[in-house]
Amino acid sequence: MKRTAMIGQLSPTHAGQPVTLQGWVGRRRDLGGLIFLELRDRSGLIQVQVEPDSPAFAQADRLRAEYVAEIEGTYQLRPEGQRKGNAADYEVIASRVKVLNTARTPPFELEKGAEVAEDIRLKYRYLDLRRPEMQRALMLRSRATAAVTAFLDAEGFVAVETPMLTKSTPEGARDFLVPSRLNPGEFYALPQSPQLFKQLLMIAGLDRYYQLARCFRDEDLRADRQPDFTQLDMEMSFVEQEDVLELQERLLSHVFKTVLDVELPLPFPRLSYQDAMDRYGSDKPDLRFGMAFGDVTDLFAGGDFAAFADAGAVKVLAAPDLTRKQIDELERVAKQNGAKGLAWARRSGEGFTGGISKFLTAQTAALLERTALPEGGILLFAAGEWKRAVTALGAVRLGLRDLFSLAAAGPQFHVSWVTDFPQLEYDEESATWTYMHHPFTAPHPDDVALFGTARQGEIRAQAYDLVLNGFEIGGGSIRIHDPAVQQQMFTAIGFSPEEARKQFGFFLDALESGTPPHGGIAWGFDRLVMVMSGASSIREVIAFPKNNRGADLMALAPSPVSAAQLEEVGLEKSGK
Amino acid sequence: MKRTAMIGQLSPTHAGQPVTLQGWVGRRRDLGGLIFLELRDRSGLIQVQVEPDSPAFAQADRLRAEYVAEIEGTYQLRPEGQRKGNAADYEVIASRVKVLNTARTPPFELEKGAEVAEDIRLKYRYLDLRRPEMQRALMLRSRATAAVTAFLDAEGFVAVETPMLTKSTPEGARDFLVPSRLNPGEFYALPQSPQLFKQLLMIAGLDRYYQLARCFRDEDLRADRQPDFTQLDMEMSFVEQEDVLELQERLLSHVFKTVLDVELPLPFPRLSYQDAMDRYGSDKPDLRFGMAFGDVTDLFAGGDFAAFADAGAVKVLAAPDLTRKQIDELERVAKQNGAKGLAWARRSGEGFTGGISKFLTAQTAALLERTALPEGGILLFAAGEWKRAVTALGAVRLGLRDLFSLAAAGPQFHVSWVTDFPQLEYDEESATWTYMHHPFTAPHPDDVALFGTARQGEIRAQAYDLVLNGFEIGGGSIRIHDPAVQQQMFTAIGFSPEEARKQFGFFLDALESGTPPHGGIAWGFDRLVMVMSGASSIREVIAFPKNNRGADLMALAPSPVSAAQLEEVGLEKSGK
Repeated sequence: MKRTAMIGQLSPTHAGQPVTLQGWVGRRRDLGGLIFLELRDRSGLIQVQVEPDSPAFAQADRLRAEYVAEIEGTYQLRPEGQRKGNAADYEVIASRVKVLNTARTPPFELEKGAEVAEDIRLKYRYLDLRRPEMQRALMLRSRATAAVTAFLDAEGFVAVETPMLTKSTPEGARDFLVPSRLNPGEFYALPQSPQLFKQLLMIAGLDRYYQLARCFRDEDLRADRQPDFTQLDMEMSFVEQEDVLELQERLLSHVFKTVLDVELPLPFPRLSYQDAMDRYGSDKPDLRFGMAFGDVTDLFAGGDFAAFADAGAVKVLAAPDLTRKQIDELERVAKQNGAKGLAWARRSGEGFTGGISKFLTAQTAALLERTALPEGGILLFAAGEWKRAVTALGAVRLGLRDLFSLAAAGPQFHVSWVTDFPQLEYDEESATWTYMHHPFTAPHPDDVALFGTARQGEIRAQAYDLVLNGFEIGGGSIRIHDPAVQQQMFTAIGFSPEEARKQFGFFLDALESGTPPHGGIAWGFDRLVMVMSGASSIREVIAFPKNNRGADLMALAPSPVSAAQLEEVGLEKSGK
Repeated sequence: MKRTAMIGQLSPTHAGQPVTLQGWVGRRRDLGGLIFLELRDRSGLIQVQVEPDSPAFAQADRLRAEYVAEIEGTYQLRPEGQRKGNAADYEVIASRVKVLNTARTPPFELEKGAEVAEDIRLKYRYLDLRRPEMQRALMLRSRATAAVTAFLDAEGFVAVETPMLTKSTPEGARDFLVPSRLNPGEFYALPQSPQLFKQLLMIAGLDRYYQLARCFRDEDLRADRQPDFTQLDMEMSFVEQEDVLELQERLLSHVFKTVLDVELPLPFPRLSYQDAMDRYGSDKPDLRFGMAFGDVTDLFAGGDFAAFADAGAVKVLAAPDLTRKQIDELERVAKQNGAKGLAWARRSGEGFTGGISKFLTAQTAALLERTALPEGGILLFAAGEWKRAVTALGAVRLGLRDLFSLAAAGPQFHVSWVTDFPQLEYDEESATWTYMHHPFTAPHPDDVALFGTARQGEIRAQAYDLVLNGFEIGGGSIRIHDPAVQQQMFTAIGFSPEEARKQFGFFLDALESGTPPHGGIAWGFDRLVMVMSGASSIREVIAFPKNNRGADLMALAPSPVSAAQLEEVGLEKSGK
């Protein structure tokens, strides 16, 4: 039972040769007594022709869609008029056909799979995964896995598997719980990330660590989120931020080169969080296109136009001409993202018309100069508290990208770093400070003295995000290795020493046991593969994903279990 | 903050050169005003000498055990009398010392770690993992991971991650359950293995699959078992048993060569299950030494010695001379393994003395000839129902191995296949047939006709185990791809079509949707790494293992959770 090659590996050198192929039957046509079949494996597709007087005919005549077949025959060029200069110029004239297995009539046509309701695709995932685009995505993911492993192994990283049954901590997202039968009434938690364990591995002296880690968060599912996901998790000892970024750039370039044969220009551009927000209204800006904001706060400050005069920030975006409908749509986007509205004006000659044009008289010359707006172009304004204004205009910028396919003109892949995130964020609602990344992120050494002062909001974290085409595909930081700084951090976010010890006791013990300077990063591996493969959802790059109710529609999970199973772990369904 | 190299990478080419090293302080001695320190990283250990007038002295004097330090100095040969012709011939004369972090006094001396109670080692695992033998085991494991990935990627295997939150099935071992919050009263199960999913991937046309898969079984923990473990899981389409074995042999050889520079002789020897049991009393025989059983059933059949006359099998093992105490110990082993006792006799000249010698008169000549027992040697007999007799004597054989270090004289690693397992086993207690591997294992094609006949116990499975030094390190089979055979198998084990559909409905649908012939194997990766590294327990090759109560003594898992957390998933503690 040996095939000559997979279909996609056949080449002109096989021309005129006997070949044996194995795969699935696609379309079948019967024409003038001949049978034409498509035979498909994960590498490609080929036409098989079976002549009426062939000894293969009787078996071939049994074949239906999705049957599994072995075909022996001659690999040869198709008649001259049917050639197109590619692999499809060849066909196989069958001399022997063996039905290896039959198949029920599929519930949907594989060729139309992309249009089939996703629930149906998920229920029959074993058929959906026969579609070439799905197989290509999974194979791309596999190649990325192998490329990462080879690179990190060669760089001295140690692959370590961290615990899957671990301790529930009330930090961050909600845990998935696993009842313990040997310790009734107690629970494991599935890990939200290996963060503490990877730091412990550095404390243990492993020096460099990596893992393709499954992580679990029991959150309300949004459109493109899964209850479990895969993170490429890495950590390094005796490093500073620059060392981590340099290695990461080489790693990501290696992956793109190996998997896609794409060269990423090095080094990746870097933006501070402040700049990214200020110019693009996002901490993960899509830089395949420009359209940075202009700052015109000064032009309106203390002026006549009340809506702008007192604003913390007035930002402006130079857009192409827009219809009234498009402006309304963009205003809806701005409002959804926290703006009160979206002010606009259209250039007409050396002045403005429409929208708020009547309030711009005094600023006309300066606005035209700063924005270089062409005739007919439109200025879009956001004004208000800085973060709110830039965030809203950032969303409008992405709306314009989608309206005008602005990203298509740029590079296929644009990677950048966003750095210098704030260490602490002030939560208005609870009137408390909280961490922006996680409580183990190291502050910039120059800023440590600001802890506990009125200026602690200005502390910069040694944190960095890796951004690809507007997606955050990685995030990391240098970690705190000094127990005294860790204590300052806990104090800043309102953790008493007792609370800190209750939640992270064993980790704080470890931190005092000889911790090297260290830092790391984690990639959202599903999302990276999604962007690399051009897929529109992470579900397209996961073999057996959950739907947005957290359900596996094929295996039918979750599902009820017996009362006896519950009793074994000391639980019962609650009365309600 | 850059080190010249890791300590273990320093070589004579660095002699006389300035070096910067980073690591942990081991032993410190103060001698004649000098400070001698050991500096350790994961790659090695080096002596650092700090002279009293050195600018490094003040910092060096602060160093205590397990402090983290950066040392700059000159790498040079130690005085002639202190050289031993290895890396320890070199030392560093420090010119600068920087304390990178302090450390509490460790709760145990790392150098004596192997003698420390395991509970203490697990509680302070981040210190335990600083021990060189632990780091070596984890690095070996990492290299094995990379070697496997590179090999399988090059062979066209696709790495696929299968679901971690899946469906509870009452098959096999007990599931760990995960309550669903979005679907209260329903549960996911953590996967016991990816068996169904890897077969679905073959049905989906992925052709070749692999995964280092975490698997979960909620069983009562024995000495060397973990609630979760790692399996190298593989599956191939359009293959027969021979194809799987051939690829596996190349893979395992590649791993041994890459990781240990050990050449495994190819092909691996093969024994049928029948032969392995009959000659060694085990389906995972340790073949680093011989000591195969002799069969002497015929010599005693219908004879005067009642204990042997009616026995289904009388097996004999030729052992060295044994003390009375040793014989008693081996008899205890035999009884623990199902024998009523352990008969013995010692050769003395051309006859036997002691034990059952008086019953052997008629068989003396034949026994001496068949066993080639030397003077003073001892014959050990097991008699009774075949499987019970060989199993007991197999345990005695391993007892002799341990008593006389028999394995030490053989190859360091001995790998073999055990094949042709029975498809079905008869369970006396429930008077039913059950599967020996799992219900999807394909029977030998020549034996399919025996299903449903009185001889169905003779059906051979296309199943194979990979055995290393007496450990089963892998097991697999060709799978059933013909739905009709699958139905025969379910019928044989007493599953009605309704029951089969209830438990495996979606899988049976898939099986009828165009399933290629396929088969695979899974390696017990923890156990393989344990044997490769010479460790005595899988806990020694897992970074953060559970103890034998399923507890993580460091992170303190499992642990109680709040009533609110339980309520969210619709559960409460049961009244008892």
